[in-house]
Amino acid sequence: MTAEIEPFHAIRVSLEAHRLKSEGGSIIHMEFGQPSTGAPAAAIARAHEVLDSDPMGYWQSPALKERICRHYREVYRVTVDPAQIVLTCGASPALVLALSVLFEPGARVAMARPGYVAYRNTLKTLHLEPVELDCGEEAGFQLTAAVVAALDPPPQGLILASPANPTGTIIPRAELVAIARVCAEHGIALVSDEIYHGIAYGAETPSILEVDPGAMVINSFSKYFSMAGWRLGWLVAPLDKVDAAIARMSNLFLTPPSLSQHVGLVAMDCPEELEANVETYRRNRELLLCALPNMGLARIAPPDGAFYIYADVSDFTDDSMDLALALLRDTGVATAPGIDFDPMLGHHFLRISFAVSTPEVEEAIARMGPWFASRNRGRRQG
Amino acid sequence: MTAEIEPFHAIRVSLEAHRLKSEGGSIIHMEFGQPSTGAPAAAIARAHEVLDSDPMGYWQSPALKERICRHYREVYRVTVDPAQIVLTCGASPALVLALSVLFEPGARVAMARPGYVAYRNTLKTLHLEPVELDCGEEAGFQLTAAVVAALDPPPQGLILASPANPTGTIIPRAELVAIARVCAEHGIALVSDEIYHGIAYGAETPSILEVDPGAMVINSFSKYFSMAGWRLGWLVAPLDKVDAAIARMSNLFLTPPSLSQHVGLVAMDCPEELEANVETYRRNRELLLCALPNMGLARIAPPDGAFYIYADVSDFTDDSMDLALALLRDTGVATAPGIDFDPMLGHHFLRISFAVSTPEVEEAIARMGPWFASRNRGRRQG
Repeated sequence: MTAEIEPFHAIRVSLEAHRLKSEGGSIIHMEFGQPSTGAPAAAIARAHEVLDSDPMGYWQSPALKERICRHYREVYRVTVDPAQIVLTCGASPALVLALSVLFEPGARVAMARPGYVAYRNTLKTLHLEPVELDCGEEAGFQLTAAVVAALDPPPQGLILASPANPTGTIIPRAELVAIARVCAEHGIALVSDEIYHGIAYGAETPSILEVDPGAMVINSFSKYFSMAGWRLGWLVAPLDKVDAAIARMSNLFLTPPSLSQHVGLVAMDCPEELEANVETYRRNRELLLCALPNMGLARIAPPDGAFYIYADVSDFTDDSMDLALALLRDTGVATAPGIDFDPMLGHHFLRISFAVSTPEVEEAIARMGPWFASRNRGRRQG
Repeated sequence: MTAEIEPFHAIRVSLEAHRLKSEGGSIIHMEFGQPSTGAPAAAIARAHEVLDSDPMGYWQSPALKERICRHYREVYRVTVDPAQIVLTCGASPALVLALSVLFEPGARVAMARPGYVAYRNTLKTLHLEPVELDCGEEAGFQLTAAVVAALDPPPQGLILASPANPTGTIIPRAELVAIARVCAEHGIALVSDEIYHGIAYGAETPSILEVDPGAMVINSFSKYFSMAGWRLGWLVAPLDKVDAAIARMSNLFLTPPSLSQHVGLVAMDCPEELEANVETYRRNRELLLCALPNMGLARIAPPDGAFYIYADVSDFTDDSMDLALALLRDTGVATAPGIDFDPMLGHHFLRISFAVSTPEVEEAIARMGPWFASRNRGRRQG
């Protein structure tokens, strides 16, 4: 038997959404974590240029590696050597590289629960053992140094995600420093998923490299840079591990898409458009945070960053997939069931992505309001 | 210790080639297996259209899956269900999916030696055991049913590659049928790498699906469709294994590049340009097969397909990397050392890719002729 890997349950919701749309339904797609905006205009213009001049062979852009290092200098004030950067086909393959370089089969790797489903499943595929730490609403669904220090025996690795998926919560700098210290003391290798960096609503998002230059960092052009379908990401590995990561990259994935690298390089110099996207998310977030409690969805993790709201729906259901499908069929609003992110408690949660336009958020609120209100009444009467 | 994975040695040659070029050197790139042509013109035109209309979210094209099934009907007369197709970021990730779905850590998976280096390294990364079968010049460097049947104990899996990299040799249909029969008898799972299908010079290239509908097939748009840097490929999995493959795809890789899927769909309907590329390879192959023996490179596997010549250079060196670097520095012709493909005997071989233009092949021959002639004399005198 090979490892049992569950599919993404949100995909089932999405397929149903597309079916309803093909039948003429009006659908608002809030089930996946992808910007509905495209890459910045200047980046698209660059794509048109390159399409007519480059035969698109296998390629890794040296200029993009340099530009990513500049990004670390400018945003985090840390020095990263271009030789530490491995360009990948998105953050997912970057995670595969990091885990494969760091751990042997059977190694225990800890992470927060709820958390991004692919952490658990990628670990299982690589025959590593996920150790899911129930972080709970009180802790903002985030890891703390105390929780990590209490693990006995300590795990071989720890995956951090801040801002997190599905909650958007952020680990404060002091806690990040404390977690890194615990990991150093216990020889726990750190992998930091920083894919939602750049999308935050006031809170600071330090990189793990500011506190531990030896950590592995994965990142991507899919979220802040609004290039999900371009499949471009990167791994930052310490110099003593980067050759092993590059060897795996060339064997398992070869190279990232050539055109995407040209586009990504330009996208990194388009702050106006990208910050305008974040402003849209900020408005959307405020609209939802204002409207949801009135619908009876009052227990929400503070979404300090990313573009998700992870809402407790235990007043309405014990089966979040059932609720997500009912909401979709009745209102056309597609959301992700919490069971994708938390196999234990996720049946009581929905994840709502607000990386859509503000009119779509307003329309979703208008449809969801009466629907939850009627359900709420139904439940109270029942 | 995690698995020791070697980098591609050809990359070292390529880096040196680029360094020499930056110093003004005239370089002919025959070290990598990638077409120097781009995607067909109509496919590029489609890319321009889509760039201006599609925000490029995560996506798997249903139309492309259907079109690939039509390809199997038309080219091989086999019926494949679109539900069996998993679109991937190239053949390399498709191999990761196939191996991960089929085998548990420690499983033994056999393949021909010489062979594509990533088979061995991907197996090692997944903690599977490569069983390399020395196929030798006499057997055209290809597997036979007899060699597979002689394995005691039988391996859990077998990777077939026909046309093969680095040799271009093809397994005849009768032998393929016999191999499939041996595998069925011994419960050996078959993975067929058909990435060079479409590029053959007279010999028939049957798909394994014609003889074993339960086999896993990996393929790509990188070779025949001339879209290497677009990172698009596919896996055909039997229906009872495809859900496990899809679950791994969404966790480990998410989706293939969206634009590449639009481009690939159009490329599949551009036979004129693609066949013109194959005609170029045919001319290049004939020029090399005519010229190389006169340089003292007479022992060559019959390159029935693909765009490689794997030449025995044991008259000139016991260190193919050293020879490749000397050839590059003296003539500007970049080739791949055999050690990438055969850790045992590859020090006596060079792989020459002829997926370049015919004038480049002519120029390469003009430069290589005197160089090998002088080396040959030097060796005879020494």
